[in-house]
Amino acid sequence: MPRLSIHRLSMAHPGDVSALAALIGDGTLPARQIRAVIGKTEGNGGLNDFTRGYFTQSLLHLLADATDEAPEDLAGRIPCVLSGGTEGVLSPHYMVFAVDPAEDGPEGLAMGTAFGPPVAPEDVGNDAQIMRVAAAVRAAMADAGIAGPGDVALVQVKSPAGGPGLLLRSVAGGAMGAALALGDVPAVAAREDALLTALDLFSPRVSASAGVEVTRDEVVVFGRAAGWCGGLRIAVRPMADALDLAAIQAAFRAAGLEAKPDVPPAQRPRIRAVLAKGEPDRRHRIRGQRHTMLGDIDIDAQRHLRGALGAVIASVAGDGRIFVSGGAAHQGPPGGGLVAVIAEEA
Amino acid sequence: MPRLSIHRLSMAHPGDVSALAALIGDGTLPARQIRAVIGKTEGNGGLNDFTRGYFTQSLLHLLADATDEAPEDLAGRIPCVLSGGTEGVLSPHYMVFAVDPAEDGPEGLAMGTAFGPPVAPEDVGNDAQIMRVAAAVRAAMADAGIAGPGDVALVQVKSPAGGPGLLLRSVAGGAMGAALALGDVPAVAAREDALLTALDLFSPRVSASAGVEVTRDEVVVFGRAAGWCGGLRIAVRPMADALDLAAIQAAFRAAGLEAKPDVPPAQRPRIRAVLAKGEPDRRHRIRGQRHTMLGDIDIDAQRHLRGALGAVIASVAGDGRIFVSGGAAHQGPPGGGLVAVIAEEA
Amino acid sequence: MPRLSIHRLSMAHPGDVSALAALIGDGTLPARQIRAVIGKTEGNGGLNDFTRGYFTQSLLHLLADATDEAPEDLAGRIPCVLSGGTEGVLSPHYMVFAVDPAEDGPEGLAMGTAFGPPVAPEDVGNDAQIMRVAAAVRAAMADAGIAGPGDVALVQVKSPAGGPGLLLRSVAGGAMGAALALGDVPAVAAREDALLTALDLFSPRVSASAGVEVTRDEVVVFGRAAGWCGGLRIAVRPMADALDLAAIQAAFRAAGLEAKPDVPPAQRPRIRAVLAKGEPDRRHRIRGQRHTMLGDIDIDAQRHLRGALGAVIASVAGDGRIFVSGGAAHQGPPGGGLVAVIAEEA
Amino acid sequence: MPRLSIHRLSMAHPGDVSALAALIGDGTLPARQIRAVIGKTEGNGGLNDFTRGYFTQSLLHLLADATDEAPEDLAGRIPCVLSGGTEGVLSPHYMVFAVDPAEDGPEGLAMGTAFGPPVAPEDVGNDAQIMRVAAAVRAAMADAGIAGPGDVALVQVKSPAGGPGLLLRSVAGGAMGAALALGDVPAVAAREDALLTALDLFSPRVSASAGVEVTRDEVVVFGRAAGWCGGLRIAVRPMADALDLAAIQAAFRAAGLEAKPDVPPAQRPRIRAVLAKGEPDRRHRIRGQRHTMLGDIDIDAQRHLRGALGAVIASVAGDGRIFVSGGAAHQGPPGGGLVAVIAEEA
Repeated sequence: MPRLSIHRLSMAHPGDVSALAALIGDGTLPARQIRAVIGKTEGNGGLNDFTRGYFTQSLLHLLADATDEAPEDLAGRIPCVLSGGTEGVLSPHYMVFAVDPAEDGPEGLAMGTAFGPPVAPEDVGNDAQIMRVAAAVRAAMADAGIAGPGDVALVQVKSPAGGPGLLLRSVAGGAMGAALALGDVPAVAAREDALLTALDLFSPRVSASAGVEVTRDEVVVFGRAAGWCGGLRIAVRPMADALDLAAIQAAFRAAGLEAKPDVPPAQRPRIRAVLAKGEPDRRHRIRGQRHTMLGDIDIDAQRHLRGALGAVIASVAGDGRIFVSGGAAHQGPPGGGLVAVIAEEA
Repeated sequence: MPRLSIHRLSMAHPGDVSALAALIGDGTLPARQIRAVIGKTEGNGGLNDFTRGYFTQSLLHLLADATDEAPEDLAGRIPCVLSGGTEGVLSPHYMVFAVDPAEDGPEGLAMGTAFGPPVAPEDVGNDAQIMRVAAAVRAAMADAGIAGPGDVALVQVKSPAGGPGLLLRSVAGGAMGAALALGDVPAVAAREDALLTALDLFSPRVSASAGVEVTRDEVVVFGRAAGWCGGLRIAVRPMADALDLAAIQAAFRAAGLEAKPDVPPAQRPRIRAVLAKGEPDRRHRIRGQRHTMLGDIDIDAQRHLRGALGAVIASVAGDGRIFVSGGAAHQGPPGGGLVAVIAEEA
Repeated sequence: MPRLSIHRLSMAHPGDVSALAALIGDGTLPARQIRAVIGKTEGNGGLNDFTRGYFTQSLLHLLADATDEAPEDLAGRIPCVLSGGTEGVLSPHYMVFAVDPAEDGPEGLAMGTAFGPPVAPEDVGNDAQIMRVAAAVRAAMADAGIAGPGDVALVQVKSPAGGPGLLLRSVAGGAMGAALALGDVPAVAAREDALLTALDLFSPRVSASAGVEVTRDEVVVFGRAAGWCGGLRIAVRPMADALDLAAIQAAFRAAGLEAKPDVPPAQRPRIRAVLAKGEPDRRHRIRGQRHTMLGDIDIDAQRHLRGALGAVIASVAGDGRIFVSGGAAHQGPPGGGLVAVIAEEA
Repeated sequence: MPRLSIHRLSMAHPGDVSALAALIGDGTLPARQIRAVIGKTEGNGGLNDFTRGYFTQSLLHLLADATDEAPEDLAGRIPCVLSGGTEGVLSPHYMVFAVDPAEDGPEGLAMGTAFGPPVAPEDVGNDAQIMRVAAAVRAAMADAGIAGPGDVALVQVKSPAGGPGLLLRSVAGGAMGAALALGDVPAVAAREDALLTALDLFSPRVSASAGVEVTRDEVVVFGRAAGWCGGLRIAVRPMADALDLAAIQAAFRAAGLEAKPDVPPAQRPRIRAVLAKGEPDRRHRIRGQRHTMLGDIDIDAQRHLRGALGAVIASVAGDGRIFVSGGAAHQGPPGGGLVAVIAEEA
């Protein structure tokens, strides 16, 4: 029945939601159809990155004005998954996912969302988080009308950061919870003692992040479901490491775009979303050569990783608006990660 | 007559020259045949990057022990071009260029070196530097026996950093001097008032850098010349911007390697050197999308650029040992740069 | 007639105005009496520091709710001078300056504010800015009822950042404009070609800053005026360099506090505001010893300076809530700056 | 019998030992009398700070030339304790401690040194390190002829960094080992499970650090002993927090200098060494106010701390040549640290 649409918008600074305001203002996008926002702001991506909170506050004020709902209520029903850090060629942007319930189709790309309950600061990175997120993923699947895990293409999770030192652990817990819900990691293994250690346990279709600006687990699920309109195609591929150019090209091709080596200019407007997760290889080596990301006091390792992986993906997309997020434990192979592309069909 | 050989070596830290010591120690590489060293150390690449000086001191002590020449004398005849900053997937390494004069060939890849006179701190980024570097390039061509500018494939320049605030200006002056010697920029235009402003004046075959650890302009020239042995192929390509994946693949292919999309594992050992220059686009945009490299107080813009461009090139090479250096004014198109590949023939 | 009151409030993050909300909510501070806010947020203090904008947005929403004025109107009448960067021991905080017009006194600490006209991005750091700011200072003096420059204790200026590379120049222009209005720099000398070069031209009672989040020059003036209530004392002292402990102690003492060596715990609650400006000495030396602030690629020089100077002041205050801001050209002696203390009388 | 002398020397960059070369060259300081070097280089102070290794290499080459001993042998008998990071007003410098055995005195400031055995990378931060360091401290006391722990004024320890993530743990282990030897922490408590957790266990006269460039524990002990010449006075004081101005002044005064508030210019040349340890308060607060050092992704917490604490001490010394080192667990009170001053008697 419904139709999913995705608007990919640029921002001039983390408080700039003028592009969305224009779309709402001219009637292109009814504010009440907005169901999720995923974006990349230009902070450092760490615990003291407040660009995510700033963008969220700006977005909620805009939507509150447009819908007459309170900002708190909107925050409680619209997942806003922001990743800080636009290192290198990356460009600050946000993707607005809207659903028009009045339209009708036989089967197509579906999206569902769900929120978990409020979380105490210490209650991340543990079994409780894994269970909470798994339940939220199932709820988001139900929301989308996705029949089963086999029809899920991608799960995006955002969890509270927890206290100092817990950020990456919260990311891992969110990923493990989603992997559990999808059956990509068996229940017996999806436990807190595996977080950040048993890196061979992963889902190749989960993208997780964490931040101080959220207080509940937020989940967005994409997949195939009956009743949704066609026109959008999603493809997700695991990457073996941060240099996996072949996997990146394969994802773009599977989404219906050429990539020889990059997406031709004429096809680039069809790109609706590119999302990726990656990780500085903990063995301190990539293909046998030493990297220095993990021992650098001056630049956070995740900033190094985003700048590098984001550039490789952007060189294929021909566009710097890539959502790339570090901390990829349990989201694709160790030292690697995954890349997802959503494109309009030709 | 001579044969050029290139050893690409890893380092565990900026004072680690043990890989070269082993090659000298077991007789693989006679120390007296070493003519130039180009490398990438893991500092920040800026004025307060002392990893270059540390490596240079370590190298000179090793070579002094092996040749019985004084370190100062070695520093005066062996260009040591180091670029700091192995952001992202880049791996610290150095390439040792050696020439065996006893061998003989009809025509092949030639290398020549030259040094300019000592430079006063304020005497960079001006017409004097341009003239000095141009003369040094001509001397290096003569040293290599390269007949004319048309036979030059690549010029690598390193100039003194000058005082605070002059680093990028010194890079530009070195590039312009080499461009003048090659005829890629006409003499009437290759003037100090064009430095860092007339960015459409460039050579697509000059790679320049600057550092506090050198006190004279140092030049290495590569090209075709009679009398040199064959077996090595060099290819250089301009890049339109930091996402120019096609140009990068073209450089690898022109050097005799496949790149579909990356160099196959079996061919990777044939890669002898990959060198690149790039630049954060000063228009604050890449292909129409805003980048944030130039306004970031936390990470230097050149570090952003090296991490991004280096990763794109490494994803094609399948190897993080890429010499990528920021500050590409007058070295390739504005906002872009150039990439050079030297490979053994199959 | 009026009474100035100052509330010094902590924030948990740059979007946290809950302490002010509580004061307004319980009737302690009528929102309509708020006339200026000066604060320190925990960003990097540079062009890409969005914590200032985030705090300002949060503040304006709070005040809009409390006053029923539009945020834009509030922004146009309440100067909000924020400095990013709480390096070292510094603590994020904001000072709310309120004026109760119903109270009455013979003479006391007066405050006035003024705004300049909207500024084009390129129109900073020039004669136009100097004239604009001088006019705004005079308007703020009139607003306070301050009879003449001799009664002014301190001027706080905030100007638009201008385009990339203009931030420090805008700070200097704001300082020079205020120095002109106070007669501390003669009109013939207060010209754009003196900015950042003729550092011996300065006012020892001007604190200037700049930021991307303001579009007009904003001025707050403090001084003695008839009709204001007593009870607050202000003292301002120039500092010869970043180590000028004696000057700092002198400022606290002149404001009526002991400092032997620090303010005793019992007197600390009487501190209402501490503001300081400082500058990494451009001669690369402090008292003959080399400092490394200006050549550091990893940490911005102003962050170094704020962390150091802020700690010295905080060690006297016994409290990390110090408003310390870098870029002190024309605000105190070269390489030094100034420090201002406002305290309640015992 | 012997006489201790201390030369405090500046460096222009981390490879600059020219000031020491001059002292040796003109006969002021016989190279064979050099017994220890403690210094501050301008790196980032973390795992990837190679300025310490660069300085050490430069120093050892100089001393090898001057003594005809091999660099390895010198490194095995002369502790070289370097701390990276000259944030803020701090100035790169090194203190050369020399002992002239031919001189004679009744009692005075004594110095002794000792080295532990080679350490495997994983063997830090555990009971083995604590025992090793305690033994080395006792050996250094014996070397100095110090009768017992009561006569020890200050112990300086440097331990290997261990693998990634172990740096601060190695610092803690070194501190605990020295505290054990001095009897400041009882043997039953000086155990590996107390490291970095039982912060109330500390010695107020131990300064510990760690670095990748050393492979053995190195210890320098200062104290009173018979037979040494007089003329130098040492004072050590614990600091309650990073703002403890009174404790800092007390240390200078106990060393025989005025501090009202700072050391008068005429007395400053008598300062021979200032050493301090400090720590970002792990409770995220200093005197009740939130600090942001521990959550900053852009600047390492120890860099924040050194810049702040170093400035407070330098403001009393009137000189930026302060050896201040972060990671003060078990070296003074939690959240505080200690400061030591050595001065010539008037």
